[in-house]
Amino acid sequence: MTVQLEIISVGNELLIGKILNTNAHWMAKRATSLGVAVKRITVVGDDVDEIAAATAEALQRKPRFIIATGGLGPTFDDKTLEGIAKALDRKVEIDEKALKMVKEKYEALAKEGKTEKVELTPPRVKMAKLPEKGEPIRNPIGTAPGVIIEAKGTVLIALPGVPPEMEAIFEESIFPMLKREAGEITFFETSIFADSIMESALAPLIDQVMHDNPHVYIKSHPKGKENTSHIELHFSTTAKDSKTAETRIGKTIIQLSELIENGGGKIRIQRKRRST
Amino acid sequence: MTVQLEIISVGNELLIGKILNTNAHWMAKRATSLGVAVKRITVVGDDVDEIAAATAEALQRKPRFIIATGGLGPTFDDKTLEGIAKALDRKVEIDEKALKMVKEKYEALAKEGKTEKVELTPPRVKMAKLPEKGEPIRNPIGTAPGVIIEAKGTVLIALPGVPPEMEAIFEESIFPMLKREAGEITFFETSIFADSIMESALAPLIDQVMHDNPHVYIKSHPKGKENTSHIELHFSTTAKDSKTAETRIGKTIIQLSELIENGGGKIRIQRKRRST
Repeated sequence: MTVQLEIISVGNELLIGKILNTNAHWMAKRATSLGVAVKRITVVGDDVDEIAAATAEALQRKPRFIIATGGLGPTFDDKTLEGIAKALDRKVEIDEKALKMVKEKYEALAKEGKTEKVELTPPRVKMAKLPEKGEPIRNPIGTAPGVIIEAKGTVLIALPGVPPEMEAIFEESIFPMLKREAGEITFFETSIFADSIMESALAPLIDQVMHDNPHVYIKSHPKGKENTSHIELHFSTTAKDSKTAETRIGKTIIQLSELIENGGGKIRIQRKRRST
Repeated sequence: MTVQLEIISVGNELLIGKILNTNAHWMAKRATSLGVAVKRITVVGDDVDEIAAATAEALQRKPRFIIATGGLGPTFDDKTLEGIAKALDRKVEIDEKALKMVKEKYEALAKEGKTEKVELTPPRVKMAKLPEKGEPIRNPIGTAPGVIIEAKGTVLIALPGVPPEMEAIFEESIFPMLKREAGEITFFETSIFADSIMESALAPLIDQVMHDNPHVYIKSHPKGKENTSHIELHFSTTAKDSKTAETRIGKTIIQLSELIENGGGKIRIQRKRRST
Protein backbone atom coordinates (compact mmCIF):
# COMPACT_ATOMS: atom_id res chain seq x y z
CA MET A 1 0.00 0.00 0.00
CA THR A 2 1.41 3.38 -1.02
CA VAL A 3 2.27 5.74 1.81
CA GLN A 4 0.07 8.83 1.50
CA LEU A 5 0.97 12.40 2.37
CA GLU A 6 -0.99 15.63 2.48
CA ILE A 7 0.63 19.05 2.56
CA ILE A 8 -0.94 22.08 4.26
CA SER A 9 0.68 25.40 3.37
CA VAL A 10 -0.13 28.21 5.79
CA GLY A 11 0.32 31.87 4.89
CA ASN A 12 -1.62 34.88 3.65
CA GLU A 13 1.31 35.63 1.33
CA LEU A 14 0.34 32.54 -0.68
CA LEU A 15 -3.32 33.56 -0.93
CA ILE A 16 -2.63 37.11 -2.10
CA GLY A 17 -0.25 35.86 -4.80
CA LYS A 18 2.75 37.52 -3.20
CA ILE A 19 4.87 34.40 -3.48
CA LEU A 20 4.79 31.10 -5.34
CA ASN A 21 4.26 27.98 -3.25
CA THR A 22 7.81 26.73 -3.68
CA ASN A 23 7.72 24.89 -0.34
CA ALA A 24 4.88 22.57 -1.38
CA HIS A 25 6.54 22.01 -4.74
CA TRP A 26 9.87 21.15 -3.14
CA MET A 27 8.36 18.77 -0.59
CA ALA A 28 6.10 17.11 -3.18
CA LYS A 29 9.15 16.42 -5.34
CA ARG A 30 11.19 15.02 -2.47
CA ALA A 31 8.36 12.82 -1.16
CA THR A 32 7.44 11.58 -4.65
CA SER A 33 11.06 10.56 -5.26
CA LEU A 34 10.61 8.08 -2.38
CA GLY A 35 7.43 6.62 -3.85
CA VAL A 36 5.26 8.48 -1.32
CA ALA A 37 1.97 9.62 -2.89
CA VAL A 38 1.12 13.27 -2.29
CA LYS A 39 -2.68 13.24 -2.30
CA ARG A 40 -3.55 16.86 -1.68
CA ILE A 41 -2.03 20.30 -1.11
CA THR A 42 -4.16 22.79 0.80
CA VAL A 43 -3.26 26.46 1.16
CA VAL A 44 -4.91 28.47 3.94
CA GLY A 45 -4.30 31.86 5.52
CA ASP A 46 -2.90 32.80 8.92
CA ASP A 47 -6.12 32.06 10.74
CA VAL A 48 -6.61 29.56 13.57
CA ASP A 49 -10.01 28.38 12.36
CA GLU A 50 -8.87 27.96 8.75
CA ILE A 51 -5.79 26.00 9.83
CA ALA A 52 -7.86 23.88 12.24
CA ALA A 53 -10.46 23.14 9.54
CA ALA A 54 -7.86 22.16 6.94
CA THR A 55 -6.09 19.94 9.48
CA ALA A 56 -9.29 18.24 10.65
CA GLU A 57 -10.37 17.61 7.06
CA ALA A 58 -6.98 16.14 6.15
CA LEU A 59 -7.05 13.88 9.24
CA GLN A 60 -10.45 12.54 8.19
CA ARG A 61 -8.96 11.36 4.90
CA LYS A 62 -6.46 9.31 6.98
CA PRO A 63 -3.19 9.90 5.13
CA ARG A 64 -0.14 8.40 6.87
CA PHE A 65 1.51 11.84 6.97
CA ILE A 66 0.37 15.45 7.05
CA ILE A 67 3.06 18.11 6.75
CA ALA A 68 2.12 21.71 7.49
CA THR A 69 4.54 24.52 6.71
CA GLY A 70 4.54 28.13 7.83
CA GLY A 71 3.24 29.88 10.92
CA LEU A 72 5.70 28.59 13.54
CA GLY A 73 7.53 31.86 14.22
CA PRO A 74 7.32 34.40 17.05
CA THR A 75 4.78 36.86 15.61
CA PHE A 76 1.08 37.16 16.39
CA ASP A 77 0.09 35.69 13.04
CA ASP A 78 2.11 32.50 13.47
CA LYS A 79 -0.89 30.36 14.32
CA THR A 80 -0.22 26.90 12.94
CA LEU A 81 0.33 25.09 16.25
CA GLU A 82 -2.76 26.71 17.73
CA GLY A 83 -4.74 25.61 14.67
CA ILE A 84 -3.44 22.04 14.86
CA ALA A 85 -4.18 21.90 18.58
CA LYS A 86 -7.73 23.06 17.90
CA ALA A 87 -8.20 20.38 15.23
CA LEU A 88 -7.01 17.72 17.69
CA ASP A 89 -8.96 19.21 20.58
CA ARG A 90 -5.76 19.50 22.59
CA LYS A 91 -4.28 22.36 24.54
CA VAL A 92 -1.16 24.28 23.60
CA GLU A 93 1.44 24.19 26.37
CA ILE A 94 5.06 25.09 26.89
CA ASP A 95 7.21 22.08 26.06
CA GLU A 96 10.39 22.01 28.14
CA LYS A 97 12.45 20.30 25.43
CA ALA A 98 11.34 22.85 22.85
CA LEU A 99 12.00 25.71 25.25
CA LYS A 100 15.53 24.41 25.79
CA MET A 101 16.05 24.31 22.00
CA VAL A 102 14.84 27.90 21.60
CA LYS A 103 16.94 29.07 24.54
CA GLU A 104 20.10 27.44 23.21
CA LYS A 105 19.55 29.09 19.84
CA TYR A 106 19.39 32.56 21.39
CA GLU A 107 22.40 31.82 23.58
CA ALA A 108 24.36 30.84 20.48
CA LEU A 109 23.16 33.97 18.66
CA ALA A 110 24.14 36.15 21.62
CA LYS A 111 27.61 34.57 21.58
CA GLU A 112 27.93 35.48 17.91
CA GLY A 113 26.84 39.01 18.79
CA LYS A 114 23.68 38.73 16.71
CA THR A 115 21.35 39.50 19.59
CA GLU A 116 21.99 41.38 22.80
CA LYS A 117 19.75 39.51 25.15
CA VAL A 118 19.20 35.81 25.71
CA GLU A 119 16.04 36.69 27.59
CA LEU A 120 13.07 34.44 26.86
CA THR A 121 10.51 37.08 25.92
CA PRO A 122 6.89 36.01 25.30
CA PRO A 123 7.37 35.91 21.48
CA ARG A 124 10.34 33.59 21.98
CA VAL A 125 8.51 31.37 24.47
CA LYS A 126 5.67 31.20 21.95
CA MET A 127 7.85 29.10 19.64
CA ALA A 128 8.04 26.44 22.38
CA LYS A 129 4.28 26.20 22.91
CA LEU A 130 3.30 22.90 21.32
CA PRO A 131 0.02 21.02 21.16
CA GLU A 132 -0.13 18.44 24.01
CA LYS A 133 1.93 15.32 23.24
CA GLY A 134 3.75 17.15 20.46
CA GLU A 135 7.50 16.57 20.18
CA PRO A 136 9.87 19.30 18.99
CA ILE A 137 12.13 18.57 15.99
CA ARG A 138 15.58 20.14 15.86
CA ASN A 139 15.85 23.15 13.52
CA PRO A 140 19.48 23.04 12.38
CA ILE A 141 19.56 26.61 11.09
CA GLY A 142 16.72 28.69 12.60
CA THR A 143 15.09 29.29 15.96
CA ALA A 144 11.58 27.79 15.72
CA PRO A 145 11.65 24.00 16.18
CA GLY A 146 9.53 21.77 13.97
CA VAL A 147 6.84 19.70 15.67
CA ILE A 148 5.70 16.10 15.29
CA ILE A 149 2.44 14.70 16.70
CA GLU A 150 0.84 11.29 16.29
CA ALA A 151 -2.93 11.43 16.06
CA LYS A 152 -5.48 8.88 14.87
CA GLY A 153 -2.93 6.85 12.92
CA THR A 154 -1.55 9.92 11.17
CA VAL A 155 1.84 11.50 11.76
CA LEU A 156 1.30 15.25 11.79
CA ILE A 157 4.38 17.37 11.20
CA ALA A 158 4.70 21.17 11.35
CA LEU A 159 7.71 22.89 9.78
CA PRO A 160 8.67 26.57 9.55
CA GLY A 161 7.81 28.41 6.33
CA VAL A 162 11.23 29.97 5.75
CA PRO A 163 12.46 27.76 2.88
CA PRO A 164 16.04 27.04 4.05
CA GLU A 165 14.75 26.12 7.54
CA MET A 166 11.95 23.94 6.17
CA GLU A 167 14.39 22.16 3.85
CA ALA A 168 17.01 21.65 6.55
CA ILE A 169 14.55 20.05 8.99
CA PHE A 170 12.98 18.01 6.19
CA GLU A 171 16.31 16.59 5.06
CA GLU A 172 17.59 15.88 8.53
CA SER A 173 14.48 14.45 10.17
CA ILE A 174 11.51 14.01 7.81
CA PHE A 175 13.04 12.49 4.67
CA PRO A 176 14.54 9.52 6.59
CA MET A 177 11.18 8.93 8.28
CA LEU A 178 9.28 8.94 4.96
CA LYS A 179 11.93 6.68 3.44
CA ARG A 180 11.59 4.17 6.26
CA GLU A 181 7.81 4.01 5.80
CA ALA A 182 7.90 3.91 2.02
CA GLY A 183 10.39 1.03 2.02
CA GLU A 184 12.30 -0.11 -1.03
CA ILE A 185 10.46 1.71 -3.72
CA THR A 186 11.45 4.03 -6.55
CA PHE A 187 9.60 6.68 -8.47
CA PHE A 188 10.80 7.07 -12.01
CA GLU A 189 9.73 9.64 -14.59
CA THR A 190 10.81 10.79 -18.00
CA SER A 191 9.40 12.89 -20.84
CA ILE A 192 9.42 12.75 -24.61
CA PHE A 193 7.98 15.34 -26.98
CA ALA A 194 5.51 14.87 -29.82
CA ASP A 195 5.17 17.32 -32.70
CA SER A 196 2.79 17.57 -35.64
CA ILE A 197 0.01 15.74 -33.86
CA MET A 198 -2.83 17.31 -31.91
CA GLU A 199 -3.66 16.37 -28.33
CA SER A 200 -7.12 15.20 -29.39
CA ALA A 201 -5.50 12.75 -31.83
CA LEU A 202 -3.05 11.60 -29.16
CA ALA A 203 -5.77 10.87 -26.62
CA PRO A 204 -6.90 7.46 -27.97
CA LEU A 205 -3.26 6.38 -28.48
CA ILE A 206 -2.43 7.16 -24.85
CA ASP A 207 -5.56 5.27 -23.76
CA GLN A 208 -4.44 2.20 -25.66
CA VAL A 209 -0.84 2.27 -24.38
CA MET A 210 -1.90 2.83 -20.77
CA HIS A 211 -4.31 -0.08 -21.10
CA ASP A 212 -1.43 -2.31 -22.26
CA ASN A 213 0.96 -0.95 -19.58
CA PRO A 214 -1.18 -0.61 -16.44
CA HIS A 215 1.72 0.39 -14.16
CA VAL A 216 2.77 3.39 -16.19
CA TYR A 217 1.01 6.73 -15.97
CA ILE A 218 1.17 8.86 -19.12
CA LYS A 219 0.14 12.47 -19.15
CA SER A 220 0.15 14.86 -22.08
CA HIS A 221 1.04 18.52 -21.52
CA PRO A 222 0.48 20.86 -24.49
CA LYS A 223 3.49 23.16 -24.59
CA GLY A 224 3.10 25.08 -27.81
CA LYS A 225 1.42 28.40 -28.27
CA GLU A 226 -1.98 28.50 -29.91
CA ASN A 227 -2.25 24.93 -31.09
CA THR A 228 1.20 24.51 -32.54
CA SER A 229 0.96 20.85 -31.50
CA HIS A 230 4.09 20.69 -29.42
CA ILE A 231 3.19 18.26 -26.66
CA GLU A 232 5.18 16.91 -23.74
CA LEU A 233 4.42 13.29 -22.92
CA HIS A 234 5.29 12.54 -19.33
CA PHE A 235 5.76 8.92 -18.24
CA SER A 236 5.95 7.91 -14.59
CA THR A 237 5.91 4.73 -12.58
CA THR A 238 6.63 3.48 -9.08
CA ALA A 239 8.51 0.18 -8.77
CA LYS A 240 10.55 -1.94 -6.39
CA ASP A 241 13.79 -1.08 -8.16
CA SER A 242 14.97 1.33 -10.81
CA LYS A 243 15.73 -1.39 -13.36
CA THR A 244 12.11 -2.57 -13.33
CA ALA A 245 10.94 1.02 -13.58
CA GLU A 246 13.26 1.88 -16.49
CA THR A 247 12.40 -1.27 -18.44
CA ARG A 248 8.71 -0.66 -17.94
CA ILE A 249 8.90 2.97 -19.05
CA GLY A 250 11.18 2.14 -21.98
CA LYS A 251 8.72 -0.42 -23.33
CA THR A 252 5.87 2.08 -22.98
CA ILE A 253 7.77 4.83 -24.77
CA ILE A 254 8.56 2.55 -27.72
CA GLN A 255 4.93 1.48 -28.10
CA LEU A 256 3.53 5.02 -27.90
CA SER A 257 6.23 6.47 -30.19
CA GLU A 258 5.39 3.92 -32.89
CA LEU A 259 1.70 4.70 -32.69
CA ILE A 260 2.36 8.43 -32.89
CA GLU A 261 4.71 8.10 -35.86
CA ASN A 262 2.23 5.86 -37.65
CA GLY A 263 -0.32 8.61 -37.06
CA GLY A 264 1.90 11.18 -38.77
CA GLY A 265 3.40 12.71 -35.61
CA LYS A 266 7.08 13.27 -34.88
CA ILE A 267 8.81 12.16 -31.69
CA ARG A 268 11.65 13.99 -30.04
CA ILE A 269 13.41 12.13 -27.23
CA GLN A 270 14.76 14.69 -24.80
CA ARG A 271 15.07 12.70 -21.66
CA LYS A 272 14.65 14.35 -18.33
CA ARG A 273 14.88 11.68 -15.73
CA ARG A 274 14.54 11.58 -12.02
CA SER A 275 14.78 8.70 -9.59
CA THR A 276 16.00 8.10 -6.07
CA MET B 1 -18.67 42.25 2.64
CA THR B 2 -15.55 41.05 0.83
CA VAL B 3 -16.10 38.86 -2.20
CA GLN B 4 -14.56 35.45 -1.49
CA LEU B 5 -12.87 33.13 -3.95
CA GLU B 6 -11.50 29.62 -3.70
CA ILE B 7 -9.13 28.10 -6.23
CA ILE B 8 -9.00 24.40 -7.05
CA SER B 9 -5.94 23.32 -9.03
CA VAL B 10 -6.31 19.94 -10.74
CA GLY B 11 -3.33 17.92 -11.94
CA ASN B 12 -1.04 15.06 -10.89
CA GLU B 13 1.89 17.12 -12.18
CA LEU B 14 1.35 19.50 -9.25
CA LEU B 15 1.25 16.69 -6.68
CA ILE B 16 4.44 14.98 -7.88
CA GLY B 17 6.34 18.28 -7.80
CA LYS B 18 6.83 18.30 -11.56
CA ILE B 19 5.69 21.90 -11.89
CA LEU B 20 5.14 24.88 -9.63
CA ASN B 21 1.54 26.02 -9.19
CA THR B 22 1.99 29.20 -11.21
CA ASN B 23 -1.70 29.24 -12.25
CA ALA B 24 -2.97 29.58 -8.67
CA HIS B 25 -0.32 32.20 -7.95
CA TRP B 26 -1.24 34.22 -11.03
CA MET B 27 -4.99 34.08 -10.35
CA ALA B 28 -4.55 34.87 -6.65
CA LYS B 29 -2.57 37.96 -7.58
CA ARG B 30 -5.11 39.13 -10.16
CA ALA B 31 -8.11 38.52 -7.88
CA THR B 32 -6.40 40.15 -4.88
CA SER B 33 -5.66 43.26 -6.95
CA LEU B 34 -9.44 43.70 -7.21
CA GLY B 35 -9.98 43.39 -3.47
CA VAL B 36 -11.32 39.84 -3.83
CA ALA B 37 -10.27 37.64 -0.89
CA VAL B 38 -8.74 34.31 -1.92
CA LYS B 39 -9.68 32.07 1.01
CA ARG B 40 -8.20 28.75 0.02
CA ILE B 41 -6.23 27.00 -2.71
CA THR B 42 -6.71 23.23 -3.01
CA VAL B 43 -4.58 21.03 -5.24
CA VAL B 44 -5.91 17.58 -6.18
CA GLY B 45 -4.94 14.94 -8.73
CA ASP B 46 -6.63 13.85 -11.96
CA ASP B 47 -9.25 11.79 -10.18
CA VAL B 48 -13.01 12.25 -10.40
CA ASP B 49 -13.63 11.51 -6.72
CA GLU B 50 -10.85 13.82 -5.52
CA ILE B 51 -12.10 16.66 -7.73
CA ALA B 52 -15.70 16.04 -6.65
CA ALA B 53 -14.72 16.00 -2.95
CA ALA B 54 -12.67 19.22 -3.21
CA THR B 55 -15.51 20.93 -5.09
CA ALA B 56 -18.21 19.79 -2.65
CA GLU B 57 -16.12 20.92 0.32
CA ALA B 58 -15.46 24.32 -1.25
CA LEU B 59 -19.18 24.76 -2.01
CA GLN B 60 -20.01 24.07 1.65
CA ARG B 61 -17.85 27.02 2.69
CA LYS B 62 -20.04 29.19 0.44
CA PRO B 63 -17.50 31.41 -1.31
CA ARG B 64 -18.96 33.66 -4.01
CA PHE B 65 -16.59 32.16 -6.60
CA ILE B 66 -14.78 28.88 -7.10
CA ILE B 67 -12.30 28.70 -9.97
CA ALA B 68 -10.95 25.30 -10.95
CA THR B 69 -8.07 25.02 -13.42
CA GLY B 70 -6.79 22.04 -15.34
CA GLY B 71 -8.40 18.87 -16.64
CA LEU B 72 -10.57 20.29 -19.43
CA GLY B 73 -8.72 18.79 -22.39
CA PRO B 74 -9.41 15.83 -24.66
CA THR B 75 -7.45 13.08 -22.86
CA PHE B 76 -8.78 10.36 -20.55
CA ASP B 77 -7.33 12.04 -17.48
CA ASP B 78 -9.07 15.38 -18.09
CA LYS B 79 -11.73 14.81 -15.44
CA THR B 80 -12.57 18.18 -13.97
CA LEU B 81 -16.04 18.59 -15.48
CA GLU B 82 -16.97 15.05 -14.50
CA GLY B 83 -15.76 15.79 -10.96
CA ILE B 84 -17.72 19.03 -10.74
CA ALA B 85 -20.84 17.31 -12.11
CA LYS B 86 -20.49 14.63 -9.46
CA ALA B 87 -20.15 17.24 -6.70
CA LEU B 88 -23.33 18.95 -7.94
CA ASP B 89 -25.13 15.64 -8.53
CA ARG B 90 -25.70 16.64 -12.15
CA LYS B 91 -25.12 14.74 -15.37
CA VAL B 92 -22.50 15.60 -17.95
CA GLU B 93 -24.04 16.19 -21.36
CA ILE B 94 -23.02 17.52 -24.75
CA ASP B 95 -23.64 21.26 -24.85
CA GLU B 96 -24.51 22.45 -28.35
CA LYS B 97 -22.95 25.88 -27.84
CA ALA B 98 -19.72 24.34 -26.56
CA LEU B 99 -19.71 21.82 -29.41
CA LYS B 100 -20.02 24.66 -31.89
CA MET B 101 -17.06 26.45 -30.25
CA VAL B 102 -14.91 23.31 -30.44
CA LYS B 103 -15.95 22.63 -34.03
CA GLU B 104 -15.14 26.18 -35.13
CA LYS B 105 -11.69 25.90 -33.53
CA TYR B 106 -10.86 22.76 -35.51
CA GLU B 107 -12.24 24.30 -38.70
CA ALA B 108 -9.96 27.28 -38.20
CA LEU B 109 -7.01 24.98 -37.47
CA ALA B 110 -7.74 22.94 -40.60
CA LYS B 111 -7.78 26.14 -42.65
CA GLU B 112 -4.36 27.03 -41.27
CA GLY B 113 -3.18 23.53 -42.20
CA LYS B 114 -2.56 22.58 -38.55
CA THR B 115 -4.88 19.61 -38.61
CA GLU B 116 -6.07 17.46 -41.50
CA LYS B 117 -9.53 16.61 -40.33
CA VAL B 118 -12.26 18.73 -38.85
CA GLU B 119 -13.97 15.53 -37.78
CA LEU B 120 -15.46 15.65 -34.28
CA THR B 121 -13.81 12.57 -32.80
CA PRO B 122 -14.86 11.40 -29.31
CA PRO B 123 -11.88 13.15 -27.60
CA ARG B 124 -12.92 16.42 -29.28
CA VAL B 125 -16.59 15.99 -28.40
CA LYS B 126 -15.45 15.31 -24.81
CA MET B 127 -14.41 18.97 -24.50
CA ALA B 128 -18.04 19.98 -25.14
CA LYS B 129 -19.49 17.72 -22.43
CA LEU B 130 -20.48 20.07 -19.63
CA PRO B 131 -22.30 19.51 -16.35
CA GLU B 132 -26.05 20.21 -16.81
CA LYS B 133 -26.83 23.95 -16.82
CA GLY B 134 -23.17 24.75 -17.42
CA GLU B 135 -22.39 27.52 -19.92
CA PRO B 136 -19.27 27.43 -22.09
CA ILE B 137 -16.87 30.39 -21.97
CA ARG B 138 -14.98 31.36 -25.10
CA ASN B 139 -11.34 30.25 -25.17
CA PRO B 140 -9.62 32.92 -27.30
CA ILE B 141 -6.50 30.87 -27.98
CA GLY B 142 -7.11 27.15 -27.37
CA THR B 143 -9.71 24.50 -28.14
CA ALA B 144 -11.28 23.59 -24.78
CA PRO B 145 -13.87 26.16 -23.69
CA GLY B 146 -14.05 27.31 -20.08
CA VAL B 147 -17.24 26.55 -18.17
CA ILE B 148 -19.38 28.57 -15.78
CA ILE B 149 -22.09 27.11 -13.52
CA GLU B 150 -24.20 28.72 -10.83
CA ALA B 151 -24.85 26.46 -7.86
CA LYS B 152 -26.08 27.19 -4.34
CA GLY B 153 -25.18 30.88 -4.52
CA THR B 154 -21.68 30.16 -5.78
CA VAL B 155 -20.37 30.85 -9.27
CA LEU B 156 -18.29 27.84 -10.24
CA ILE B 157 -15.81 28.39 -13.07
CA ALA B 158 -13.59 25.81 -14.78
CA LEU B 159 -10.62 26.94 -16.88
CA PRO B 160 -8.00 24.98 -18.84
CA GLY B 161 -4.66 24.33 -17.14
CA VAL B 162 -2.45 25.47 -20.02
CA PRO B 163 -1.28 28.83 -18.62
CA PRO B 164 -1.73 31.06 -21.72
CA GLU B 165 -5.25 29.67 -22.25
CA MET B 166 -6.19 30.05 -18.58
CA GLU B 167 -4.88 33.62 -18.56
CA ALA B 168 -6.61 34.56 -21.82
CA ILE B 169 -10.04 33.33 -20.64
CA PHE B 170 -9.50 34.88 -17.20
CA GLU B 171 -8.65 38.30 -18.62
CA GLU B 172 -11.42 38.30 -21.20
CA SER B 173 -14.29 36.84 -19.15
CA ILE B 174 -13.49 36.26 -15.46
CA PHE B 175 -11.61 39.40 -14.42
CA PRO B 176 -14.48 41.71 -15.50
CA MET B 177 -16.95 39.50 -13.62
CA LEU B 178 -14.88 39.60 -10.40
CA LYS B 179 -14.40 43.34 -10.79
CA ARG B 180 -18.13 43.89 -11.10
CA GLU B 181 -18.83 41.92 -7.92
CA ALA B 182 -15.96 43.43 -5.93
CA GLY B 183 -17.06 46.99 -6.78
CA GLU B 184 -14.95 50.06 -6.21
CA ILE B 185 -12.25 48.65 -4.04
CA THR B 186 -8.47 48.61 -4.15
CA PHE B 187 -5.87 46.31 -2.71
CA PHE B 188 -2.63 48.05 -1.90
CA GLU B 189 0.61 46.53 -0.65
CA THR B 190 4.16 47.62 -0.08
CA SER B 191 7.24 46.32 1.73
CA ILE B 192 10.05 47.82 3.76
CA PHE B 193 13.05 45.96 5.18
CA ALA B 194 14.34 45.87 8.75
CA ASP B 195 17.91 44.96 9.63
CA SER B 196 19.74 44.46 12.91
CA ILE B 197 16.59 43.44 14.76
CA MET B 198 15.33 39.91 15.32
CA GLU B 199 11.84 38.78 14.43
CA SER B 200 11.12 37.94 18.06
CA ALA B 201 11.91 41.56 19.01
CA LEU B 202 9.78 42.86 16.12
CA ALA B 203 6.74 40.81 17.13
CA PRO B 204 5.44 43.07 19.96
CA LEU B 205 6.07 46.21 17.84
CA ILE B 206 3.98 44.80 14.99
CA ASP B 207 1.25 43.89 17.50
CA GLN B 208 1.13 47.44 18.76
CA VAL B 209 1.09 49.07 15.32
CA MET B 210 -1.60 46.71 14.00
CA HIS B 211 -3.67 47.47 17.08
CA ASP B 212 -3.40 51.20 16.32
CA ASN B 213 -4.05 50.67 12.57
CA PRO B 214 -6.75 48.01 12.42
CA HIS B 215 -7.21 48.20 8.63
CA VAL B 216 -3.60 47.44 7.80
CA TYR B 217 -2.21 43.92 7.83
CA ILE B 218 1.50 43.66 8.58
CA LYS B 219 3.43 40.46 8.08
CA SER B 220 7.10 39.84 8.73
CA HIS B 221 9.08 37.56 6.43
CA PRO B 222 12.62 36.65 7.56
CA LYS B 223 14.80 36.85 4.47
CA GLY B 224 18.31 36.45 5.77
CA LYS B 225 20.23 33.22 6.08
CA GLU B 226 20.71 31.71 9.51
CA ASN B 227 19.43 34.52 11.67
CA THR B 228 21.13 37.41 9.94
CA SER B 229 18.09 39.50 10.92
CA HIS B 230 17.14 40.72 7.48
CA ILE B 231 13.36 40.90 7.59
CA GLU B 232 10.82 41.99 5.01
CA LEU B 233 7.85 43.81 6.49
CA HIS B 234 4.88 43.55 4.19
CA PHE B 235 2.00 46.02 4.58
CA SER B 236 -1.34 45.52 2.89
CA THR B 237 -4.80 47.03 2.99
CA THR B 238 -8.04 47.06 1.06
CA ALA B 239 -9.77 50.41 0.67
CA LYS B 240 -12.36 52.29 -1.39
CA ASP B 241 -9.70 54.22 -3.24
CA SER B 242 -5.95 54.19 -3.63
CA LYS B 243 -5.45 57.53 -1.86
CA THR B 244 -7.06 56.21 1.32
CA ALA B 245 -5.00 53.04 1.04
CA GLU B 246 -1.72 54.88 0.50
CA THR B 247 -2.31 57.33 3.34
CA ARG B 248 -3.22 54.50 5.67
CA ILE B 249 -0.17 52.43 4.78
CA GLY B 250 2.13 55.48 4.90
CA LYS B 251 1.02 56.33 8.45
CA THR B 252 1.55 52.72 9.53
CA ILE B 253 5.03 52.53 8.01
CA ILE B 254 6.09 55.71 9.79
CA GLN B 255 4.89 54.46 13.17
CA LEU B 256 6.50 51.02 12.84
CA SER B 257 9.76 52.43 11.46
CA GLU B 258 10.09 54.75 14.46
CA LEU B 259 9.50 51.91 16.90
CA ILE B 260 12.04 49.71 15.13
CA GLU B 261 14.69 52.44 15.03
CA ASN B 262 14.11 53.22 18.70
CA GLY B 263 14.70 49.50 19.33
CA GLY B 264 18.08 49.62 17.60
CA GLY B 265 16.92 48.28 14.22
CA LYS B 266 17.62 49.79 10.83
CA ILE B 267 14.95 50.46 8.20
CA ARG B 268 15.49 50.23 4.49
CA ILE B 269 12.69 51.57 2.31
CA GLN B 270 12.71 49.67 -0.94
CA ARG B 271 9.22 50.11 -2.15
CA LYS B 272 7.57 47.44 -4.18
CA ARG B 273 4.04 48.54 -4.77
CA ARG B 274 1.05 47.05 -6.40
CA SER B 275 -2.43 48.38 -6.82
CA THR B 276 -5.15 48.25 -9.43
